[in-house]
Amino acid sequence: MQAEIIAVGTEILLGQVVDTNSAFIARELAGAGIEVYYHSLVGDNADRLTGVVKQARSRSDLVVISGGLGPTKDDLTKQTVAHLLGVKLVENEAAMTKIKNHFATTGKPLTPNNRLQALYLAGSQPLKNSTGMAVGAFYQAPDDEADMLLLPGPPSEMQPMMTHEAVPALRAAYQRHEYLTSRVLRFFGIGESQLTTKLGDLIEHQTNPTIASYAKRNEVTLRLTASTTGSAEAQTLLDQMTATIKERVGDYLYGYGDDNSLANVVVQRLIDQHLTITGAESLTAGEFQSTIGSIPGVSAVFPGGFVTYANRAKHDLLGIPQRIIDNDGVVSEATAKEMAERSRKLLDTDLALSFTGVAGPDSLEGQPAGTVWLGLAQRGQAPQAKLMHFAGTRGDIRMRSVLTGLDWLRRLIPAAK
Amino acid sequence: MQAEIIAVGTEILLGQVVDTNSAFIARELAGAGIEVYYHSLVGDNADRLTGVVKQARSRSDLVVISGGLGPTKDDLTKQTVAHLLGVKLVENEAAMTKIKNHFATTGKPLTPNNRLQALYLAGSQPLKNSTGMAVGAFYQAPDDEADMLLLPGPPSEMQPMMTHEAVPALRAAYQRHEYLTSRVLRFFGIGESQLTTKLGDLIEHQTNPTIASYAKRNEVTLRLTASTTGSAEAQTLLDQMTATIKERVGDYLYGYGDDNSLANVVVQRLIDQHLTITGAESLTAGEFQSTIGSIPGVSAVFPGGFVTYANRAKHDLLGIPQRIIDNDGVVSEATAKEMAERSRKLLDTDLALSFTGVAGPDSLEGQPAGTVWLGLAQRGQAPQAKLMHFAGTRGDIRMRSVLTGLDWLRRLIPAAK
Repeated sequence: MQAEIIAVGTEILLGQVVDTNSAFIARELAGAGIEVYYHSLVGDNADRLTGVVKQARSRSDLVVISGGLGPTKDDLTKQTVAHLLGVKLVENEAAMTKIKNHFATTGKPLTPNNRLQALYLAGSQPLKNSTGMAVGAFYQAPDDEADMLLLPGPPSEMQPMMTHEAVPALRAAYQRHEYLTSRVLRFFGIGESQLTTKLGDLIEHQTNPTIASYAKRNEVTLRLTASTTGSAEAQTLLDQMTATIKERVGDYLYGYGDDNSLANVVVQRLIDQHLTITGAESLTAGEFQSTIGSIPGVSAVFPGGFVTYANRAKHDLLGIPQRIIDNDGVVSEATAKEMAERSRKLLDTDLALSFTGVAGPDSLEGQPAGTVWLGLAQRGQAPQAKLMHFAGTRGDIRMRSVLTGLDWLRRLIPAAK
Repeated sequence: MQAEIIAVGTEILLGQVVDTNSAFIARELAGAGIEVYYHSLVGDNADRLTGVVKQARSRSDLVVISGGLGPTKDDLTKQTVAHLLGVKLVENEAAMTKIKNHFATTGKPLTPNNRLQALYLAGSQPLKNSTGMAVGAFYQAPDDEADMLLLPGPPSEMQPMMTHEAVPALRAAYQRHEYLTSRVLRFFGIGESQLTTKLGDLIEHQTNPTIASYAKRNEVTLRLTASTTGSAEAQTLLDQMTATIKERVGDYLYGYGDDNSLANVVVQRLIDQHLTITGAESLTAGEFQSTIGSIPGVSAVFPGGFVTYANRAKHDLLGIPQRIIDNDGVVSEATAKEMAERSRKLLDTDLALSFTGVAGPDSLEGQPAGTVWLGLAQRGQAPQAKLMHFAGTRGDIRMRSVLTGLDWLRRLIPAAK
């Protein structure tokens, strides 16, 4: 069972709009156990659309098209596919009623082109559009020919139709007993090449679950995907592979899930452990505090803190002695420790992180861009500091500083059981 | 001259990541006067990639591929294309030097697979990667065969390479006599539909320059594109259209250029006018300061400031009287003014902005998420405040608050002549 996805629309061909439909459809198909090998994209042009659909039908069992079901003269998908398949377009009564009601409610005139949205391929299963007017269609072709799934282009219409109408129709038609279940593992502090080298044999011999690595900005994720007939079996397979991976690179594994982040993990642990935190930021200029401030619920553990960009702010706001700045410099172990400890005391928190360094592009105190001292203060303990050397742009160096600080906290604060 | 675009990567094929590269490349090609008729997308699979590239070369004059230039064994693009073209891969010295320097700086081991990133197609023009390590390539094929352009997959690497390396190479190779010259106008505080309505007749009758609007996150841009044989003629056309547009919506126009931002415009004006600034942030938790802190040179005008997330920090760090917090609440005109004026005085700056409001998802003091007071203090003047109501997620509300504050500053501080 092999599918391919075609997006139709001149505005996406020209790059004026990014096609998010194909990615959504691919994920939904994967969840239904249907593999996708190709995506294509063409403009609102009947000849080129015909060519792309013909080719897709020649190499796949199912062709999914989004876009071109609307009322304007650019919308050619239904007409083109009907012509190619040699079937007629017929009116869907439910869709026509919805269109009539819409125009009656809004008081606008029902123009003939709006009636086009109620047409679908004869012999296909019409798919209800809960958020718009253009009806979709699932066409099961005779013999070995490829089936066709036609969806509207606007994501707000396509997504509910795909999830609630098309996927159940596909599952019923193809009697998919195998389900795909995914788990995402998130890593910080290890590069993709190093991670995949350490897991080389697992990746080489992957079968079930499969393992896919992906390098994101400043982190790497692994997606494990199990194909099973039941969810308990899937969880077992995923748990076993997760345990194997953790044995090798668990130190860098900070969390799970598509929407997770290091800041989210750290803030949840602070909340769980009732630990309060503040920050004193020089080169990061508030980015650490803004990052933890983006997590809902952080107010329980974060009262606020200090942005001490200039030396005078380090002195005026935190009281860092001028002799430390003069003797050690601001990019120094001593300054990092003082910034952390003094901000912690001023706001009476359990923890404080400090950031002082060279964001670039110019060097500072003779130290090159990317030189960063991080300080950590803990109630009842002597402050610590560590020196990092980051590469990249000013933005990279600042973000990397923040993430390294968050990772220091993650390693310090145990996860709740 | 007809091009097509291929994106390579299993994570985009499966829909785990949305392909934004093809849209970006399509826009850049349009700017260089090159038409695009097809986009395709395949996974990290040599056979299917070969098939797609063969087909693309059979129907187009230029094939642009993004993705698959990295160091892992999934990265197959260069090897596959080299095999298909019958050319070798050779090492680019500049890229290899950059790779060696990176690993020397970070102290991580240089594994053999990282050396792969310095390889490019023999006989092609190597394209520098200013933000990463994988070198790109522009290959001009003999006779009538299709040329190839190979770009890295990460958008942060692909975009600068496409704009600054590939487009000039394409222009030079194809000797485009008619040059397209673009100017981007950036607007804040007006929606795309409102903007295009106000400019409706200009957009309707556009010929030269053309006008294209794009709704970005929290701003709208207009791209004017003039097609001329000389640059003076282009500037005249663009200047005339810009003047016409400014007459109608100039109030919302904050700047020009692809890489510009409201923060950049404001920081440049502060520097030009020798005005210093600080901030006191509650709901934004440092995002305003972090945003201006991201602009190189900001140290001349920004000493630092305050993150006063909890009420106690507003009292302890700024000295906001408890009676104001008790009587007016923290989401109030009085608190916004006090935060701005007290932070300004503490750091003795010319200006200060404050942010206090409800980031959500929960309401606060009986006020719904999105209720935000901004305060502005100026040396020698009474502080001001204004009330905003923003929609969206917690992140949207915070970002919108910061941008509204920056726009307030932009309207206050005149541009240098």
